[in-house]
Amino acid sequence: MNILVVGSIALDSVETPWGTAKDSPGGSALYFSSAASYFAPVNIVGVVGTDFDFKGIDFLRQRTVNFEGIDQQEGLTFRWGGRYHRDLNQRDTLFTHLNVFENFNPRIPESYRSSDFVFLANIDPDLQMQVLRQIARPKLVILDTMNFWITGKRNSLDEVIRQTDILILNDEEARLLTDTNNLISAGRIILERGPKYLIIKKGEHGAVLMHENSYFSAPAYPLEKVVDPTGAGDTFAGGFVGYIARTGKIDEPTMRKAIIYGSTIASFNVEDFSFRRLISLKGEELEGRVQDFSRIITY
Amino acid sequence: MNILVVGSIALDSVETPWGTAKDSPGGSALYFSSAASYFAPVNIVGVVGTDFDFKGIDFLRQRTVNFEGIDQQEGLTFRWGGRYHRDLNQRDTLFTHLNVFENFNPRIPESYRSSDFVFLANIDPDLQMQVLRQIARPKLVILDTMNFWITGKRNSLDEVIRQTDILILNDEEARLLTDTNNLISAGRIILERGPKYLIIKKGEHGAVLMHENSYFSAPAYPLEKVVDPTGAGDTFAGGFVGYIARTGKIDEPTMRKAIIYGSTIASFNVEDFSFRRLISLKGEELEGRVQDFSRIITY
Repeated sequence: MNILVVGSIALDSVETPWGTAKDSPGGSALYFSSAASYFAPVNIVGVVGTDFDFKGIDFLRQRTVNFEGIDQQEGLTFRWGGRYHRDLNQRDTLFTHLNVFENFNPRIPESYRSSDFVFLANIDPDLQMQVLRQIARPKLVILDTMNFWITGKRNSLDEVIRQTDILILNDEEARLLTDTNNLISAGRIILERGPKYLIIKKGEHGAVLMHENSYFSAPAYPLEKVVDPTGAGDTFAGGFVGYIARTGKIDEPTMRKAIIYGSTIASFNVEDFSFRRLISLKGEELEGRVQDFSRIITY
Repeated sequence: MNILVVGSIALDSVETPWGTAKDSPGGSALYFSSAASYFAPVNIVGVVGTDFDFKGIDFLRQRTVNFEGIDQQEGLTFRWGGRYHRDLNQRDTLFTHLNVFENFNPRIPESYRSSDFVFLANIDPDLQMQVLRQIARPKLVILDTMNFWITGKRNSLDEVIRQTDILILNDEEARLLTDTNNLISAGRIILERGPKYLIIKKGEHGAVLMHENSYFSAPAYPLEKVVDPTGAGDTFAGGFVGYIARTGKIDEPTMRKAIIYGSTIASFNVEDFSFRRLISLKGEELEGRVQDFSRIITY
């Protein structure tokens, strides 16, 4: 089964305590695809400028990622610059130049319209709705968002959430979306608003899955060295959706395993800048770390 | 096997969003004993004033908790007052009246000196050393401490840590003790300083156990309503040490299970003020929640 992802394509300049990377390919759509393409074919929709060098993402094409929906426009590619602190949970945004991304108008190519799984990365909820209107009812709609849209475009976001099967948030966003401090209560409230499944990401504390009255908790992979946290959330989502697409099953046991795969691939991604680590990642490395998870939780 | 605990005995006045409790029995030694006595006999060492009403802890005597080491002194019992915010991780201390606890001088009764397990609750590390000097080498020394001693009595604390088998900290304390942000690295550093096992408590995010090159992660029990978080850490420790004492085995598989029991009993404790919930707690309720843990982590 194949996956449609709609999101940003960026050139990131990142400083972390371990080094710097300038104008590296990034953005939610590329991070997601780097992870998801491990498991299943991916159709990307995004926009780049004439300065974008497709060589940097050539490895994706070799993994059956379809670039037909990448719109190349006159102008510069979206650029983001950030600096992470010693506490990698803290970062300063140094600059955000939207460039051609400012007028992003996602159009879904005909060949993409029968995609089985749709991942709406963190973009304007009005654009997310525009995507949903262009596609035949897919098997699963998976949604990501952020504080900016929760506070700034609430009605539009609520409408997309109603159309969503699986919502992926971090703990702060879940609290903000429900004005509720207790995370379990926040989760129950969100599940009444449309999504059948809710994933709450908690960074170094792992992730939880809520579905009806069921609750699943997965730890994060214990890493001593995180080089660049950028893209952790999108590669988690990519591994998660990719694993489901590969198995083709939409049930809770599959979702639980998919969270372990998402966490695993995100744990590799943060070991280097951009998605460099995912370019070289071998299947046996991935499976080895998946096995580690079972040792970590067994008692 | 039996357990020696040395710690505070207090009368707590607590305000939380769910209500208030005035002059309720509390303190690390009593919270610990309320949990540990579920599993094994406990010998308490602590100090109270003439105002202390032993009726409030009569249930402990019925569970074979030995009060012989509770020293009743002229004066008032240690009193602490606190107010929890809507975010229960935030609290204000309203008052701390040390009273007779100010000159606490732990003396271990003859009948306690062959205790198998020694839990040194969070008190002055010089007093913790004074306890260790009075007892025959026990099977296990388990240590708790806090930021106040990490910054204020570092040399004494380091000495106690060297004598410790199992150190229990929260994440903030582990970072402070090692001046290291990454929790896994912090754990490795601590394990080189003496303890064979390290437990890092992360509140609503669960707890981890580190031992040699092994790493175990347990989630917290998902609670929608926390009435009073006071004593969560000490009841966790009580359930943890109690479980080990009941099984009598000192190995990693036992420690892992013991963390699940500690987390379970702490999850009950925070459902009511003081340790009221642990007075009524039934064995089948405890085991039911232990079973829930396995459903929460299975994939």
